[in-house]
Amino acid sequence: MQSLRLSPAHLKRYLPVLTWAKTYNRETASSDMLAAVIVTIMLIPQSLAYALLAGLPAEMGLYASILPLVAYAIFGTSRALAVGPVAVVSLMTAAAIGNLGLSDPAQIALAAGTLAFISGVILTVLGFMRLGFLANFLSHPVIAGFITASGVLIAASQLKHILGVDAHGHTLVQVVGSLLSNLGDTSLATLIIGLAATGFLFWVRKGLKPMLIGMGLKPRLSDIIAKAGPVAAVAVTTLAVWTFGLQDKGVQIVGAVPTGLPPLTLPSLSPDLWSQLFLSAVLISVIGFVESVSVAQTLAAKKRQRIEPDQELIGLGASNVAAAVSGGYPVTGGFARSVVNFDAGAETPAAGAFTAVGIAIAALLLTPLLFFLPKATLAATIIVAVLSLVDFSVLRKSWTYSKVDFTAVAATIFLTLGFGVEVGVSAGVLISIGLHLYKTSRPHVAEVGLVPATQHFRNILRHKVETQPQLVTLRVDESLYFANARFLEDYVLNRIACDQPIKHIVLMFAAVNEVDMSALETLEELNRRLGETGIKMHLSEVKGPVMDRLKRSHFLEELTGHVYLSQYDAWKALTTSAEGGSETDAA
Amino acid sequence: MQSLRLSPAHLKRYLPVLTWAKTYNRETASSDMLAAVIVTIMLIPQSLAYALLAGLPAEMGLYASILPLVAYAIFGTSRALAVGPVAVVSLMTAAAIGNLGLSDPAQIALAAGTLAFISGVILTVLGFMRLGFLANFLSHPVIAGFITASGVLIAASQLKHILGVDAHGHTLVQVVGSLLSNLGDTSLATLIIGLAATGFLFWVRKGLKPMLIGMGLKPRLSDIIAKAGPVAAVAVTTLAVWTFGLQDKGVQIVGAVPTGLPPLTLPSLSPDLWSQLFLSAVLISVIGFVESVSVAQTLAAKKRQRIEPDQELIGLGASNVAAAVSGGYPVTGGFARSVVNFDAGAETPAAGAFTAVGIAIAALLLTPLLFFLPKATLAATIIVAVLSLVDFSVLRKSWTYSKVDFTAVAATIFLTLGFGVEVGVSAGVLISIGLHLYKTSRPHVAEVGLVPATQHFRNILRHKVETQPQLVTLRVDESLYFANARFLEDYVLNRIACDQPIKHIVLMFAAVNEVDMSALETLEELNRRLGETGIKMHLSEVKGPVMDRLKRSHFLEELTGHVYLSQYDAWKALTTSAEGGSETDAA
Repeated sequence: MQSLRLSPAHLKRYLPVLTWAKTYNRETASSDMLAAVIVTIMLIPQSLAYALLAGLPAEMGLYASILPLVAYAIFGTSRALAVGPVAVVSLMTAAAIGNLGLSDPAQIALAAGTLAFISGVILTVLGFMRLGFLANFLSHPVIAGFITASGVLIAASQLKHILGVDAHGHTLVQVVGSLLSNLGDTSLATLIIGLAATGFLFWVRKGLKPMLIGMGLKPRLSDIIAKAGPVAAVAVTTLAVWTFGLQDKGVQIVGAVPTGLPPLTLPSLSPDLWSQLFLSAVLISVIGFVESVSVAQTLAAKKRQRIEPDQELIGLGASNVAAAVSGGYPVTGGFARSVVNFDAGAETPAAGAFTAVGIAIAALLLTPLLFFLPKATLAATIIVAVLSLVDFSVLRKSWTYSKVDFTAVAATIFLTLGFGVEVGVSAGVLISIGLHLYKTSRPHVAEVGLVPATQHFRNILRHKVETQPQLVTLRVDESLYFANARFLEDYVLNRIACDQPIKHIVLMFAAVNEVDMSALETLEELNRRLGETGIKMHLSEVKGPVMDRLKRSHFLEELTGHVYLSQYDAWKALTTSAEGGSETDAA
Repeated sequence: MQSLRLSPAHLKRYLPVLTWAKTYNRETASSDMLAAVIVTIMLIPQSLAYALLAGLPAEMGLYASILPLVAYAIFGTSRALAVGPVAVVSLMTAAAIGNLGLSDPAQIALAAGTLAFISGVILTVLGFMRLGFLANFLSHPVIAGFITASGVLIAASQLKHILGVDAHGHTLVQVVGSLLSNLGDTSLATLIIGLAATGFLFWVRKGLKPMLIGMGLKPRLSDIIAKAGPVAAVAVTTLAVWTFGLQDKGVQIVGAVPTGLPPLTLPSLSPDLWSQLFLSAVLISVIGFVESVSVAQTLAAKKRQRIEPDQELIGLGASNVAAAVSGGYPVTGGFARSVVNFDAGAETPAAGAFTAVGIAIAALLLTPLLFFLPKATLAATIIVAVLSLVDFSVLRKSWTYSKVDFTAVAATIFLTLGFGVEVGVSAGVLISIGLHLYKTSRPHVAEVGLVPATQHFRNILRHKVETQPQLVTLRVDESLYFANARFLEDYVLNRIACDQPIKHIVLMFAAVNEVDMSALETLEELNRRLGETGIKMHLSEVKGPVMDRLKRSHFLEELTGHVYLSQYDAWKALTTSAEGGSETDAA
């Protein structure tokens, strides 16, 4: 194990804090602290709201925003990433725990902590094994479709708090059906608070900043004030409930939130629970990692910094383990919050640690004030936040660009809405891979001819080119492997079936990056069959790695024709002499 | 549904019998009949033996060799394929039915028939949907490894009949362990019969034909006599049991086999049974189809005929449905038997129908004679037949050619032996696909330079080429898609990090056959980042289909550099002027 040799270089790699802490000074600290204040103001209502979304007590949101941020500050490589509870992962946590069918709150909290722990272990192990590239198998269209559909699901799931009714379910049909059937129970007081908070937050997001700037405030200050919108909504609606005793008029409130720092908690080690949660933990890890890395990379690029995806896995893994042992639930780097952190001037991961201090102070001092906080306000916070994630334009964009990508997006959106987040994202990955394999299993093969007065060969159907009756050149536009080798064979055999005078087939391999063993056997078979009908098979422009591979088999000895360095060499040799030129080696 | 419009052309496509029956004459019929006689002689002991291997009563082997052959003669496209019970599919049937844990023989027979029915439905549906290409996802190394491991498993599973002991299990460890623990029960009489029959059959296979030829017989006649070897073994050992009353000395015999034509049977329609058998039926269908199509294609090619894979699916589907309704179990085209059929002169699928008549006569007349047939003789028949399938040389071949292919073979062999046929073949497919994705997720990227005095560009590490300090040309040797797009981005960003004077990056796209939406977004991002550091990004040798795709996005408008028809154009433009030549279109 590399990781066990703790040389200074290893320590630095696995503890990025050692790198940036050396040059840490008062100036950086004041930048980080300002950013931390702004993020803390934003995070207090968000952390409570996301805990609600995950089906957990509000304080678990706060707990998930303290120790995990410290862990990321030590192990993470992004200088602006703000770790904590996020919407999509909270929804996935709700789905994972919903699968267990628990009703005891203590059991639910234990399951949430265990989910964070398993997820943390998975992320850390993937990081040490340098398997960060696995996240690339989630294609962009699938991620976009998944995030959009999750946003819709989340917003729909929060409508119950706005209406003050009961509703359950992990799919759009379940949630909406459940809402409609309970619509009669709508609480008017709740609805008023919910709609007012939602309307206010939308206005804060869209209209407040331009208005403040119009009033002469500096853009930066206007921005900070706008970020405090949710806190204002929380304060005003809490006050309203307290003043008018709305909790007795059907308005659901957060109620007693324990005061104090996070408790020390231990994840369950029950093999049953682990096996029930494992698949969900894998999905949460992957989605959380992808979301986190993409925002971290975007922000790093703006300052010409680089992040290290494999170390990010370790950073996020440590955060989740920290969440598990301190009463939290799965966390990751949030998009909106990280952008705010960056814009507010965060320069090092210490900003995250300062945020943790802010949340800890809130947990010590502010929790009594949260008693009368209406759940409708938190739901409004969530709805306004997630609707910015919803972007159906990816459907139009992918439709224009490629029907295959469109299929992947549309299927992911449909399946996420119709069957829940876990089915949606798993199916999205499988569909992407399936469609990719399907595409490569029917490779593009073009018959090419010489562009006059050049040495270039182009598709005879797209360009005016010279051809020769006895010579057919086929450019193979795909690596040859088990799934498509037979297709090429059929293509060639059908091509020679139509034309009598063909004496030479040249397979132009400029785009063939690989020939696996199945394809090799198919080529050998094709060579043999062409040979039996008196047609010689040649190759041209074979790449170095492919040629190295072919030399290790008997194929080149058995080949009836030659291998030409360039297609032009093949053309010259096979048009001037009847039997082809001298054998040449490949590139 | 195309298939519902029964125009004459459709009828001909779906009923190949209409094509060949038109020109059928006395001469073809006599060739087919001779082949049928030889195949019948070979098939009688084989069908009994394979039923035994599948854990079914002997007569089910005979029944599976009558109606299914007639169905294939009507719907199949191969002129030489001999359909019926085969070793690997029989082993897979045993595994599938073993999973159910049944003990009632009637239930077992019903399950076997239902398995054939489900498999028949799957094959037929795949055929109508023209999904025959799906079989290509079984790579050659996986098939070779699977067949070899199955051969070992089958031979091991038959040792119990040679020893006359009890043994069970679907993995090599189970079978061998079970054999060893019961070794004390070995029946001497059985062992003598078993070893004698095995030795005799090996000698018939290797030594008899040369000896007969040496004695002056014609090769063809010698061949036919050698094929009758198993029948001789059956006759002699049956006679020996009857004469010496060996059934009372521990020799297990076939016992009463019902006389008469196959009964009409109906598959179970129980959803429970279907869901338990479905996955096994899928695997049996795929393996059966692959085995059958590969032998059919090999034999068709020898006579310049073509087979139609999608219609083959329908032909095999009809055979399995026929097996299900006539007391049989899953069937497919057998390798050895088809070769015999071909060599014996079969000219049309009618040879199969004649074989069916032969087996029907055997079922009517010969079954009383089978009472004293020792199971050890049948086991010897199986062992000798399957050991010819075992070929570990694929391990050596794939090791030389490609470690990735070797991994797939070795894993398939190991998992089939260690966890049974179903796990083995499923894992083989998944491993092949996984390794393929892994390979393409780390594409080969080569930095290239100009081969002096030519217009060709080659890898700077492999060839003496000209380069320019301000110009880096990277040849991308893989299609760009979600799994590898980020890899390219990292590669380019790392490349420019080392070198200061770079002004132009040319991505040579001659081998890029596809750019999916994820890759497009990555290229846009790369273009933007390079632009921010003052480096222009250019493309060269972009293929037609890729260019068409790129034109549908905004990428070409945002590209900081140009797209060059050829890499040489890019070289000329970017070395002579500082800012690059005129924009040209791509091929």
